[in-house]
Amino acid sequence: MTRAFNFSAGPAALPEAVLRQAREELLEWGSARASVMEISHRGSAFMELARESESDLRQLLDIPSSHRVLFMQGGATQHFAQIPMNLARQNQSADYVISGAWGEKAFSEAGPHVQARICASSAAGGFRDVPASTDWKRDAQAAYVHYTTNETIHGVQFHEIPDVGTVPLVADMSSDILSAPIDVSRFGIIYAGAQKNIGASGLVILIVRDDLLERSPQPIARIFKYAEHAKADSLFNTPNTFGWYLSALVFKWLKGEGGLAAMAERNRRKAELLYRTIDESGFYSNPVNATARSLMNVPFFLADAGLDQVFLKEADAENLIGLKGHRVLGGMRASIYNATPIQAVEVLVDFMREFERRHG
Amino acid sequence: MTRAFNFSAGPAALPEAVLRQAREELLEWGSARASVMEISHRGSAFMELARESESDLRQLLDIPSSHRVLFMQGGATQHFAQIPMNLARQNQSADYVISGAWGEKAFSEAGPHVQARICASSAAGGFRDVPASTDWKRDAQAAYVHYTTNETIHGVQFHEIPDVGTVPLVADMSSDILSAPIDVSRFGIIYAGAQKNIGASGLVILIVRDDLLERSPQPIARIFKYAEHAKADSLFNTPNTFGWYLSALVFKWLKGEGGLAAMAERNRRKAELLYRTIDESGFYSNPVNATARSLMNVPFFLADAGLDQVFLKEADAENLIGLKGHRVLGGMRASIYNATPIQAVEVLVDFMREFERRHG
Repeated sequence: MTRAFNFSAGPAALPEAVLRQAREELLEWGSARASVMEISHRGSAFMELARESESDLRQLLDIPSSHRVLFMQGGATQHFAQIPMNLARQNQSADYVISGAWGEKAFSEAGPHVQARICASSAAGGFRDVPASTDWKRDAQAAYVHYTTNETIHGVQFHEIPDVGTVPLVADMSSDILSAPIDVSRFGIIYAGAQKNIGASGLVILIVRDDLLERSPQPIARIFKYAEHAKADSLFNTPNTFGWYLSALVFKWLKGEGGLAAMAERNRRKAELLYRTIDESGFYSNPVNATARSLMNVPFFLADAGLDQVFLKEADAENLIGLKGHRVLGGMRASIYNATPIQAVEVLVDFMREFERRHG
Repeated sequence: MTRAFNFSAGPAALPEAVLRQAREELLEWGSARASVMEISHRGSAFMELARESESDLRQLLDIPSSHRVLFMQGGATQHFAQIPMNLARQNQSADYVISGAWGEKAFSEAGPHVQARICASSAAGGFRDVPASTDWKRDAQAAYVHYTTNETIHGVQFHEIPDVGTVPLVADMSSDILSAPIDVSRFGIIYAGAQKNIGASGLVILIVRDDLLERSPQPIARIFKYAEHAKADSLFNTPNTFGWYLSALVFKWLKGEGGLAAMAERNRRKAELLYRTIDESGFYSNPVNATARSLMNVPFFLADAGLDQVFLKEADAENLIGLKGHRVLGGMRASIYNATPIQAVEVLVDFMREFERRHG
């Protein structure tokens, strides 16, 4: 067997070099005489890994000293609920911008914990665009504004950071964090599940502005309070140590590849190649407004949906996997996160052209 | 280098055979042409792993059909808070039995979410015994009774299941689940962090009686509701897929080793050897009442605490690691979970006798 070109939306492909290193040291990590999974998270070896991984992430994203970095659990979905628990009183209002399925989910999970209010949505247009930030009907008294920078299912992405004045901006960046440089100082909270651009599922990274940690407006257990995790350097309880370790390897890999500017350039080339192939064909289509197209997730549809199964089967035979579209939209979807090499996209577009020639 | 005899309290030693298999298939799992970390949790391959792991766990623990099995995140600590959110109204009372540091923590994290009440505690005696269940001052109207079956820091363990009548019995079994057969039908909820006897940190297994799932007394987000996770077969959101996979390998390993009866016998022999060595020496001591001694965590103290550092250094030179006691008690602690082979304990007691001969 051989590893495939993997376009899974998430859990997604990891850099092969990272997997090889993890394999190499799976039974004996460093000088631990044990796996990294088998040692105390409070021992000096793991604490050093924790410190260094945060330092690498800070370098990569150029995180200012005003912001703390937390390594958490629960998936982004848990933080849909935990963010209001930490940032707002239960009867306070918070603004939600909906540009796809994940924004909708963030809004609905927040519901029991804050007066969540939709201040903008592109639902009416079928999520083929993002709501322009100038049209957001914001409440100046809102506890925060929440939006989803990239929507994996609908393949739409914000390419600029909206200006929300002094209201804290909260961004779910699960699917595009680390894909390009970003001005972290503009955000109150950035959070991301790890299973796309950071590492493996079961880890969430949360970057939070210091002053927001002290809000703590709801009577909740300490385990739910970001301030407690910050005080304990993310060791309030046993973290997902293997997941943390994998993310540390990914950060080193990103630095070795030239950092986020290099990633942004590579990601732009991959996406351009794929969208150009789609747009130039008379057979494939992507319905998203060109200015809002995602550089991470590219949904596309065959002119004849009856050929979907044939496409997937022939792609699989060419060692191209993970291309089936989300059940909400059908069709195809190629997810091309950081770990996807340009070669994978080249093989994919060659296959797409050949498939069109034979079936189009 | 070589792998050490690892007595870490947690994250703890894993079966070497499990680590070897994980290493073998880390880049290509089954016929996936990808790592198990790189594929969708909703794809057929992972769903089959999920189904089979639950089936294996059900066989091992003989879980009755009245109980659901959930694969969760957040550590046991999160569930200290989540259990009251799911089982009680906020103004309802719940009874807590405190037999060590973890029981205390469970009680304090529950506080904001239920009227938590201590119904028995062995704190006054320094947690050298467990409170006899006949002395528990229970409230017959309590939403549930919570206790900790094994305390890793103080090294005390309940060796019988207390009778609490019709009140649901909730047990934190993080450190002794799967160490011996147990009558699951006696419990409302059994829960356990994975990093001792199940697998790696970042995974929690929760076994819950069906009828308790429908209580849902507090207005909380769906992500916090056990009933939602049960409905979704633990795929409500992306689970810790690698952690789940590792636990699946551990379940297969346990079955291959003869199941929990064989484990119980092996664990009894390891503990007996260690406690006998301590009791027969005039140099080492363990203060726990003989009937409440833990078969998983064996704290012991040198007659001269000034020798602690020498002991740890010489043990390390003999390839014995993870023996430093918890900071609360000082001294030493040998954790001897399922994955610790009898040979490791034999090497440890030989070293202890030799150390006593030279320094005693």
